[in-house]
Amino acid sequence: MNIAPDYSAAYIILKTDIPDLEGHGHTFTIGRGNEICVKAIESLSDAIKGKYLDDITNNWLEFYYSIVNDSQLRWIGPEKGVIHLATAALFNALWDLKAKYERKPLWRLICDMSPDELIAIIDFKYIEDALTKNEALEILLNNYDTREQRIQIITNDGYPAYTTSAGWLGYSIDKLKSLCRKAKQENWKYVKFKVGTNLEEDINRLTIAREILGEDIILMIDANQVWSVNEAIDWVNSLKIFNPWFIEEPTNPDDILGHKKIRESVEPVMVATGEHCHNKVMFKQFFQANAIDICQLDSCRLGSLHEILAVQLLAKKYNKPICPHAGGVGLCEYVQNLAIIDFVYISADLDGRVLEYIDHLHEHFIYPSKIKNGAYIIPTANGYSATIKKEAIEIYKYPNGSFWIQNIEK
Amino acid sequence: MNIAPDYSAAYIILKTDIPDLEGHGHTFTIGRGNEICVKAIESLSDAIKGKYLDDITNNWLEFYYSIVNDSQLRWIGPEKGVIHLATAALFNALWDLKAKYERKPLWRLICDMSPDELIAIIDFKYIEDALTKNEALEILLNNYDTREQRIQIITNDGYPAYTTSAGWLGYSIDKLKSLCRKAKQENWKYVKFKVGTNLEEDINRLTIAREILGEDIILMIDANQVWSVNEAIDWVNSLKIFNPWFIEEPTNPDDILGHKKIRESVEPVMVATGEHCHNKVMFKQFFQANAIDICQLDSCRLGSLHEILAVQLLAKKYNKPICPHAGGVGLCEYVQNLAIIDFVYISADLDGRVLEYIDHLHEHFIYPSKIKNGAYIIPTANGYSATIKKEAIEIYKYPNGSFWIQNIEK
Repeated sequence: MNIAPDYSAAYIILKTDIPDLEGHGHTFTIGRGNEICVKAIESLSDAIKGKYLDDITNNWLEFYYSIVNDSQLRWIGPEKGVIHLATAALFNALWDLKAKYERKPLWRLICDMSPDELIAIIDFKYIEDALTKNEALEILLNNYDTREQRIQIITNDGYPAYTTSAGWLGYSIDKLKSLCRKAKQENWKYVKFKVGTNLEEDINRLTIAREILGEDIILMIDANQVWSVNEAIDWVNSLKIFNPWFIEEPTNPDDILGHKKIRESVEPVMVATGEHCHNKVMFKQFFQANAIDICQLDSCRLGSLHEILAVQLLAKKYNKPICPHAGGVGLCEYVQNLAIIDFVYISADLDGRVLEYIDHLHEHFIYPSKIKNGAYIIPTANGYSATIKKEAIEIYKYPNGSFWIQNIEK
Repeated sequence: MNIAPDYSAAYIILKTDIPDLEGHGHTFTIGRGNEICVKAIESLSDAIKGKYLDDITNNWLEFYYSIVNDSQLRWIGPEKGVIHLATAALFNALWDLKAKYERKPLWRLICDMSPDELIAIIDFKYIEDALTKNEALEILLNNYDTREQRIQIITNDGYPAYTTSAGWLGYSIDKLKSLCRKAKQENWKYVKFKVGTNLEEDINRLTIAREILGEDIILMIDANQVWSVNEAIDWVNSLKIFNPWFIEEPTNPDDILGHKKIRESVEPVMVATGEHCHNKVMFKQFFQANAIDICQLDSCRLGSLHEILAVQLLAKKYNKPICPHAGGVGLCEYVQNLAIIDFVYISADLDGRVLEYIDHLHEHFIYPSKIKNGAYIIPTANGYSATIKKEAIEIYKYPNGSFWIQNIEK
């Protein structure tokens, strides 16, 4: 489906009058269309220029609503597509700024908040038929006293991760074999493979993968939405022999009832989706309908913490593990924070939780995410972890970066 | 919800090398955010510049897929929000161009096509679990021989319409009374009222409306998404005494399961939604779940004929009447064509079908939609009916039109 990605980002730098204090945030795209997100961010920027940080962060939700409920901009969403990607970027930058200002990693900033403080930043509009504020508060209160124990666990062991590096379509058989051997050497316990272009080739590739990885490593498959509902059912059932843990994005991301039908027809293979799930109202329904098993929320598509925490609390109530979408540009950097918050304060559980990792583009970040023994090492730098190096921005900034000048001259 | 609309449009003119042959199309917005749609249209424009019309219209669906399945642009949708609004505008302009080239009104161009020709332009991707191509073909074949009889009926009687003119929130009681009297004098059989800000005021306004309109005129209510699911149920049940035919947009437009719960809890009041329903996969589920009674599709939000015909065929199969959303900028002009196509070729039924009409901004169109005795007069001019006058474009074009120059100077 995503046949020719050209990884891009609409990137915001919020400048302040404190020397060197900046908030960085972005939304991820795969090429053309990035310019439309930039335009949308420009349209939102009047709402924030000249504001005091305290005026925003003393009443986060009021400021969030001033953006997502803007009566005119709402028409071109609401809370979906370009305008919501721009909202994600803006609030990712604001939370980065707040965490840097408080000199904490984002996950620590959130975990240090009281249950009442946390509830006050979460957007419950349109989801209270599934999860009331009181139910959410109870979840947070139950975990409040034991947060440090769980922080200790993941500080010692890291947060469990999986790799997609071996699984891309279009790799030669030799490259597939060598990447599977590498994944095994690096102690990955989970490996994900793209499927859906050609059934015979999928069977061939997964046969080889199983031979090299053995039966102990958990294997997942990802179709990137290429199938209709009934195609998905037939195809996944043909791949059941490889014992995949889950099928990711079997069909259109808006099709809640389609996922439900697929889920009921491919058991015991689990169904995962979320990187294209555009807001909390959609996730609410995926949970209410019992249409998916695993929630792969995206840190650059949802409205940052205000919406992500709502989805994490919904997932807790409906007993659905969250395995956030990562890869892209800076997604690994973002979602490590979200996974920690989820474990420490919300789900309090690592069972069935595993965080995507793709070893790609990390060199451009000041504090890149790091992996050891198939697990994320807990980030310790202040902020929301996805600040791109000044040099990389100078080179890749469109259209005036040196990379683009050279390529446009060609 | 839409507290301060500033009716706008991202407007396309496709120019050709035939003198005076242009295709005009747009997507409607309510103010800020229009500039983001314009940017998205600019991003799509490379796909069409320099092309032969025949190369597109001999294989409509291939060209449509080249836009909606563009692997990079798809990331910022797919088929939702700004990028899909831009797609709607582009294909509205292309269909206007084709109809003008063939010297027919759009509805006539479509109704003159054979069932096979029509099937070939419809996007069935992701909906065949609900409606197969063969089922769709059967619907069209059943109506093929009797099309001219139905064209005769609506040529004589017009297509039934309803008015929202009396129903806006914020009007004084005196203005409400005089508009209700006017609606009755003009022979409107259906009148719609906005509700949802204050229950006591709603009851007061609807009491006055019922007194003036009497019991024979059908009354509808519209909440513009302001309620959560449970609020909607309580509020609508409090307004049941006024015997409303339907409640429009009771809650978030993405909430299929929420609408289902509301529908089951406010019977016999029907539930209508659609002006914010972003694609055919969402409508498919609203029908599959029996979550709504009336489909209010939007001509500037769906992917023009390629997607709208798919939704109309789904609605026919699931026995849901379509009452398209109108008003805005040029929506009445567009949807009169869609309602005619639906009656002539798809639903073959007027029962429960009624087309929104708002008497607003029609003076800017070359061939504005016209009403007589509470019904649309069938349009006869060539094209898709929504071509704005050159003078109006000169005055209101942003930012260089004379209107804007005067207002910016102020």
